[in-house]
Amino acid sequence: MSSSTSAIEASPQAQVITCKAAVAWGPGEELVIEEVELSPPQAMEIRIKVVCTSLCRSDLTAWQSQTTPIFPRIFGHEASGIVESVGQGVTEFQKGDHVLTLFTGECMTCRHCTSSKSNMCQALGLEWKGVMHSDQRTRFSIKGKPVYHYCAVSSFSEYTVVHSGCAVKVRPDAPLEKLCLFSCGVAAGLGAAWKVADISEKSTVVIFGLGTVGLSVAMGAKVRGAVQIIGVDTNSEKFEKARSLGVTKCVNPTEIDEPIQQIIRQMTSGGADYAFECVGSTEVVTSAIQSCCEGWGLTVTLGVPKVKPEITAHYALFLSGRTLKGSLFGGWKPKSDIPNLVDMYVRKELNLDEFITHNLQFEDINKAFDLMIEGKCLRCVIHMPN
Amino acid sequence: MSSSTSAIEASPQAQVITCKAAVAWGPGEELVIEEVELSPPQAMEIRIKVVCTSLCRSDLTAWQSQTTPIFPRIFGHEASGIVESVGQGVTEFQKGDHVLTLFTGECMTCRHCTSSKSNMCQALGLEWKGVMHSDQRTRFSIKGKPVYHYCAVSSFSEYTVVHSGCAVKVRPDAPLEKLCLFSCGVAAGLGAAWKVADISEKSTVVIFGLGTVGLSVAMGAKVRGAVQIIGVDTNSEKFEKARSLGVTKCVNPTEIDEPIQQIIRQMTSGGADYAFECVGSTEVVTSAIQSCCEGWGLTVTLGVPKVKPEITAHYALFLSGRTLKGSLFGGWKPKSDIPNLVDMYVRKELNLDEFITHNLQFEDINKAFDLMIEGKCLRCVIHMPN
Repeated sequence: MSSSTSAIEASPQAQVITCKAAVAWGPGEELVIEEVELSPPQAMEIRIKVVCTSLCRSDLTAWQSQTTPIFPRIFGHEASGIVESVGQGVTEFQKGDHVLTLFTGECMTCRHCTSSKSNMCQALGLEWKGVMHSDQRTRFSIKGKPVYHYCAVSSFSEYTVVHSGCAVKVRPDAPLEKLCLFSCGVAAGLGAAWKVADISEKSTVVIFGLGTVGLSVAMGAKVRGAVQIIGVDTNSEKFEKARSLGVTKCVNPTEIDEPIQQIIRQMTSGGADYAFECVGSTEVVTSAIQSCCEGWGLTVTLGVPKVKPEITAHYALFLSGRTLKGSLFGGWKPKSDIPNLVDMYVRKELNLDEFITHNLQFEDINKAFDLMIEGKCLRCVIHMPN
Repeated sequence: MSSSTSAIEASPQAQVITCKAAVAWGPGEELVIEEVELSPPQAMEIRIKVVCTSLCRSDLTAWQSQTTPIFPRIFGHEASGIVESVGQGVTEFQKGDHVLTLFTGECMTCRHCTSSKSNMCQALGLEWKGVMHSDQRTRFSIKGKPVYHYCAVSSFSEYTVVHSGCAVKVRPDAPLEKLCLFSCGVAAGLGAAWKVADISEKSTVVIFGLGTVGLSVAMGAKVRGAVQIIGVDTNSEKFEKARSLGVTKCVNPTEIDEPIQQIIRQMTSGGADYAFECVGSTEVVTSAIQSCCEGWGLTVTLGVPKVKPEITAHYALFLSGRTLKGSLFGGWKPKSDIPNLVDMYVRKELNLDEFITHNLQFEDINKAFDLMIEGKCLRCVIHMPN
């Protein structure tokens, strides 16, 4: 049984387990698969056997970051799994339930969770300190020393513990090895298109950044009947896949002489109805706003900029009727909305498979990082040992 | 009959008239009441006998501006009047109709006029060059030399000519000496509150700038049942009037130690539902965004900044669910929406009289400029000679 000062003390009747986890020991350092101790779920928490976990850009960004050196740490937040045990007070889940993890949870009781207008849970929102929301401690440890969390999910592990508000039950007949993509990237893009922008039929759309999030926006725009879906990316190798997911025309801004916003305005006769920033650059947010039309042009920003956090734009862009809006996890309220997306996937109304460019075994997890750094993948799904 | 190269040639059967107009000969120079020649209305234009015209901040800003030296010029765009004659093709108006002028018109046929989502008419939008939309020439002249327009309205004159799309007919039993305020300022504020922000009952609102526009927002918020309407202004002399128009609490940012956005977030338990920028400062737009709550906080920017045209704000403000939107003329489609505001005024559901702090005769028009410069007025209504 684990006994440490920083990792949570397990109650006598509860079982600490040991399992394998991919531990990041320092920024940008190759992950090492280690034996870790994992506390049992505390009150209102569940312990999950991770089935699949995919690598998201934000795992990579946090892993590379020198500015938030929280190590050793277990990354991963886009995951599917099966409930192994539940903590005190949990009635929503039981052993054997199929679940997806949530990097931004839903407590169901705060002002935001009870409002239809927000998914910014005030109790289980983005967790940046590497600990659990409830007690600011970790559930993982190695020889008694704490190993920090990422977004209170940490799915690069055979087992993990999350708050019951940070998981959503999914139908057991849906394939967990695909569904993990709804934990973050694909859901984020779809929600930005449907819930935040509420794209209307016959509209024009421009998407900056053709990674998983951008292409999910494209898929969402296509389902909504957009007539023009322009994809912008500096990597032309992404264009073929983009076309297969609904993008009608691709533009590489490094291959044109005019500013990209000018090209987009020409292509859309005055500006797109909707623009999406899926790169994570505030410069691109400005271009997106400039690419929108007067009157009703809406820009949705989804990316997390790695440099220059300030967005700048000329006031006249707004005065003439444009809107700028942000989107975190597509504005979805995860507990109620994600099961609907799963149903749509099962009914073949949504494509997930196209987003999975690589399937890797857990021991090859570092390959997923390499592929993303090289821009060679959309989603690498990492399969945990049975 | 007028005959000049720059002013429009009148057709033989049409009558040029001479009348008195307040002419600005240079930036910041006292207006001079001059005899001017005024062309008859050209095709799709109407000539109006101005009854009342109020001074708006943007007249003052353009008059003071050294950067757009279009002189001699006749300012004024917030006016009521009676149709004196109509040009070829005009069927919407006839002699004797009561009208308000519109600084941003409605052609009824462009993509924006036919969309329910925009009031940014592509044919009769804001006119910045001092001429008429249709032929890029002036209708006023002095001894054959052109006198330039302001926003294609130029109501600081006994008579003026506007495009028929730049006027709206109003019911004849409503008092023209009050209604002129619906031509710009009061309508702009009400529309920002109702049409652009769509303020909901029991919400919290913060308004930066307690001039006519800001106080119209307050009146609109009160009608909508907002529970908290916080007014922010650096001039505490405006607070008494603000309270009478619905503001529940006034804050002078120069009299507090903390940043204003921090105070507003405290007062509203985490941020206001709606923030309005009615100062004309991009710095204030940033504070307004920061004063809004996560999840659904909406900032509406109405002001035209005189310096620093770039709005800046941290991306995280948007990612956590805030929205920034612009509003020109409150998003109203003037031809269809303004008559409804007039009806509400007649039914005493809206207050206009409180906004009129001064009534002046035409010959005293320079006093209106002085009062506004000194911050001593809301609206000065200038009464034209009978």
